[in-house]
Amino acid sequence: MTIQTPVAQLTAEAYPKVTRKTDFKVIDSTDLNYFHSILSNDEILEAQSSEELASFNQDWMKKYRGQSHLVLLPNSTEKVSKIMKYCNDNKLAVVPQGGNTDLVGASVPVFDEIVLSLRNMNKVRSFDPVSGTFKCDAGVVMRDAHQFLHDHDHIFPLDLPSRNNCHVGGVVSTNAGGLNLLRYGSLHGNVLGLEVVLPNGEIISSINALRKDNTGYDLKQLFIGAEGTIGVITGVSILAAAKPKAFNAIFCGIENFDIVQDLFVKAKSELSEILSAFEFMDRGSVEMTIDYLKDMTFPLQNHHNFYVLIETSGSNKKHDDEKLNAFLSSALESKLFSEGVIAKDHADYERLWTWRKSVPPACNINGGYKYDMSLQLKDLYSVCEAVTKRLDEAGLIGDAPKPIVKSVGYGHVGDGNIHLNIAVRVFTKEIEGLLEPFVYEYIASKKGSISAEHGVGFHKKGHLHYSRSDIEIRFMKDVKKHYDPNGILNPYKYI
Amino acid sequence: MTIQTPVAQLTAEAYPKVTRKTDFKVIDSTDLNYFHSILSNDEILEAQSSEELASFNQDWMKKYRGQSHLVLLPNSTEKVSKIMKYCNDNKLAVVPQGGNTDLVGASVPVFDEIVLSLRNMNKVRSFDPVSGTFKCDAGVVMRDAHQFLHDHDHIFPLDLPSRNNCHVGGVVSTNAGGLNLLRYGSLHGNVLGLEVVLPNGEIISSINALRKDNTGYDLKQLFIGAEGTIGVITGVSILAAAKPKAFNAIFCGIENFDIVQDLFVKAKSELSEILSAFEFMDRGSVEMTIDYLKDMTFPLQNHHNFYVLIETSGSNKKHDDEKLNAFLSSALESKLFSEGVIAKDHADYERLWTWRKSVPPACNINGGYKYDMSLQLKDLYSVCEAVTKRLDEAGLIGDAPKPIVKSVGYGHVGDGNIHLNIAVRVFTKEIEGLLEPFVYEYIASKKGSISAEHGVGFHKKGHLHYSRSDIEIRFMKDVKKHYDPNGILNPYKYI
Repeated sequence: MTIQTPVAQLTAEAYPKVTRKTDFKVIDSTDLNYFHSILSNDEILEAQSSEELASFNQDWMKKYRGQSHLVLLPNSTEKVSKIMKYCNDNKLAVVPQGGNTDLVGASVPVFDEIVLSLRNMNKVRSFDPVSGTFKCDAGVVMRDAHQFLHDHDHIFPLDLPSRNNCHVGGVVSTNAGGLNLLRYGSLHGNVLGLEVVLPNGEIISSINALRKDNTGYDLKQLFIGAEGTIGVITGVSILAAAKPKAFNAIFCGIENFDIVQDLFVKAKSELSEILSAFEFMDRGSVEMTIDYLKDMTFPLQNHHNFYVLIETSGSNKKHDDEKLNAFLSSALESKLFSEGVIAKDHADYERLWTWRKSVPPACNINGGYKYDMSLQLKDLYSVCEAVTKRLDEAGLIGDAPKPIVKSVGYGHVGDGNIHLNIAVRVFTKEIEGLLEPFVYEYIASKKGSISAEHGVGFHKKGHLHYSRSDIEIRFMKDVKKHYDPNGILNPYKYI
Repeated sequence: MTIQTPVAQLTAEAYPKVTRKTDFKVIDSTDLNYFHSILSNDEILEAQSSEELASFNQDWMKKYRGQSHLVLLPNSTEKVSKIMKYCNDNKLAVVPQGGNTDLVGASVPVFDEIVLSLRNMNKVRSFDPVSGTFKCDAGVVMRDAHQFLHDHDHIFPLDLPSRNNCHVGGVVSTNAGGLNLLRYGSLHGNVLGLEVVLPNGEIISSINALRKDNTGYDLKQLFIGAEGTIGVITGVSILAAAKPKAFNAIFCGIENFDIVQDLFVKAKSELSEILSAFEFMDRGSVEMTIDYLKDMTFPLQNHHNFYVLIETSGSNKKHDDEKLNAFLSSALESKLFSEGVIAKDHADYERLWTWRKSVPPACNINGGYKYDMSLQLKDLYSVCEAVTKRLDEAGLIGDAPKPIVKSVGYGHVGDGNIHLNIAVRVFTKEIEGLLEPFVYEYIASKKGSISAEHGVGFHKKGHLHYSRSDIEIRFMKDVKKHYDPNGILNPYKYI
């Protein structure tokens, strides 16, 4: 659950039960002298520059705020290694930080941990246009990776709304999903190699690994999604795909979620290799978006219970449009949707996407509770129905002074991923009590995941048992202990 | 290196330096009584049925032969769990075995290890046509998985020449690559969840996991490619793709490997989403295949230094053929190849594939040394050139009585994977001395992998350092020790 508040609060105050581990050393002048001996002035930020420090302590959602007095911004893997070795030897706690766009409090300190920012490691290392292998420092901003590959007729196999800020290394550490997963698959398949600095300063690298390599356990996989708890990713090798030459989209209205699923099956079968997104929104999320996008004309004539945006991308505009038109006609004929439009041109394509991409900000205007979950497709929307019913029966949804504006669901049908947003006028203990643990228990009862793509971080640390078995959690703890025996890396989080 | 010999030899005799670990218990009547108490008669094979036992001791290449007197073939995960717990408690060594089509001696015993065959766990568990999630027992034969999914308008995302024998669980344990990797990606991306029995009998399962799940370290990844050394995979959940409606292929002759790479870049750009295979063969491998396929007419008029087979698969035959024809014309115009043909119909498509699929048997008639490696594409063919030059300079290649018929290379351009085959009239120490460690050192110097898709097994156990760093090997050993502290699972192999 993410409560959005305009004012940041110290995490340590908001969660008084979490206490600073006493075996972590408090930074002193000896430590500072050491860091100054290996780093230049623009690679260290200390307490005196408090305004800049604040941005490293504060998370993207403004929900968590740490109290670090020291940010290190090394510009090489070797320096990261020296920093980690020193911190491990001296039991100084460290939080690795990428673009700090994380949504679960994973990338900011809780107490006085040192922030290790990868921001100064921002170089593209190499690109091989024949194989599509792209290698870069962890701190390369995703937008820059996209631009570089775009200029070389390729695309980065993942895109996110936070592309202007998030780092490639942070995305890998989070195992982010994003908008292209349906087409290009997950990072576990696309990451070819990683360069990682371990808590003791050792560098473990598979960055020169090739597309196929069957020489032993695939260790790099553990760092994908580890949120910086067992090592600091400093370099990434990833498989870039050929850049599509044509994009198109349709936007349609559908009366129930069973038909949404039927349409998805049809799209997989008929659009097949050119299908690149299949997104859904419920009536409530679109109603809020219509209010939010006041000046834009809604693309459909009528209102429906569900809306679906289908994107195609391929190498031949004429072929793609033929396929999409045939799909549209036959879906209308089979009454799979009540109403649908196809983008007339690229501007129209962008406009249709605006109706999907504006749902999250439209639901956030008044603040809200946000959940990111994955479920079997047949159960995907049921969590939204169950939660809405529960809140409605308690008489909490409606016009002011009721506290809840709307409870809505939207997300990625192709990935079985729903975002549940409860838009509120005011945060109340009553709403919270109705939501938790109900939502997590509901997801557990359907064998779903309580975090589809946002991760665990500080936020869901105590909730893993809703999605993972005791034995899995025990093995995860063993992994943490093995790689980070002193527990200095990103403490108080994850596992 | 794989030496193919027509007669099987006891591994223990062929490798006298490998000795039986004395802390493993020798099976006695108490053990047999226990296994009989939990298994029915058709789930146990003992010494008396020696002929059937032999097939479990003998590997696919007839290079390795073990001496097991006991094969257990449990039909449920619970029985696998009981077996493993008992074996762990009693220090009985165990070799998990799937279809036993492995090429590196991973799936047969070395001494008297118990063979744990997954053959009786052969049920499809479920298929969800909406999400494409396919769940099955580990012992389902890949051909049956393909057939099941074919009947449900989907395809298994991986295919292998050994599809009639290999098991789904074995394929995952080997992290097999196969013929569709270029299109559908690796098992690390496609496997959604695994059910695994650990050496101590505990069951760790993520088989209900969904396409997106970011709740902690992705532990299942370690078992993909672990070759049964840290757990026994008993169930697999995998993402099936929609079945393509159209297939086509072109076969062409090319004069040098630089142009092969140029053609690959062009194919990725122009065929893009319908490109599903890009295979190459050198002149020598095709010459041997022409001899092997005596009665078949070679599809091209002239001979060339390289041959490429390009496959497309998609959802619209007319669109695909248009793309492929345009590609063929423009590649001919740009002189990217000297000669090329496109399949006229499905039978012709199958015939073109025969010229690629027959290369391995054509190179094996006289026996041979086989290497499976991956390299950066620019270096891919250079290993074949370097090895051939070395053998030729030693005067070993040519007509009888020279020992070597031909040294040839072929493989998957799309995956950076070359198979180097030295077809011989006779195996000699001189050839072996020229090949090793030269081949491994060459691969190491180019930062390639000494095993692209076949794995490590018994065969490459001592060679990992050519592709992996000391720290990686140390961490791999730690993984093994952690999951299998008694070392009972698939001993003498891997790491």
